[in-house]
Amino acid sequence: MVYDVSERRVNKVLKIGRKYITWIQNSVLEGEILPSNFLKMKVEINKVINKNEDSVLFYILRDLKYTEKENIGIVKNSDDRFI
Amino acid sequence: MVYDVSERRVNKVLKIGRKYITWIQNSVLEGEILPSNFLKMKVEINKVINKNEDSVLFYILRDLKYTEKENIGIVKNSDDRFI
Repeated sequence: MVYDVSERRVNKVLKIGRKYITWIQNSVLEGEILPSNFLKMKVEINKVINKNEDSVLFYILRDLKYTEKENIGIVKNSDDRFI
Repeated sequence: MVYDVSERRVNKVLKIGRKYITWIQNSVLEGEILPSNFLKMKVEINKVINKNEDSVLFYILRDLKYTEKENIGIVKNSDDRFI
């Protein structure tokens, strides 16, 4: 999950995201999530963002076999269950 | 590509990223890239970041068949070749 939302709403969006998945860096979270919880998270985010100004994106990786992660510099945080 | 770098270096990192892939939102870029260009991009980023402070992450999705993208709110930008 990556988000680009107004400063006024950024803490609300981050707080919702952290309830379900793991904060990684800046405005990035990642994690394994059940479809039912993914839906709940999206409903909650829908309620707090301004849909004419804010943007929240989800990259849904169904099979981690085809996914790799590379890092330059420090690792701010990581979800060990994931990638 | 997602980055969390000091404000002093953020424009340099963004500029390098945009040479190779597409800006999507805030500190997020995406795109199709040849392995040789990916390597070049990483070498350039390595030169401008402070490896003790900054963090640049690459999620490498080898097969888009297993990847979906969902959006809440506005779409700031998108790469039509991708997802």
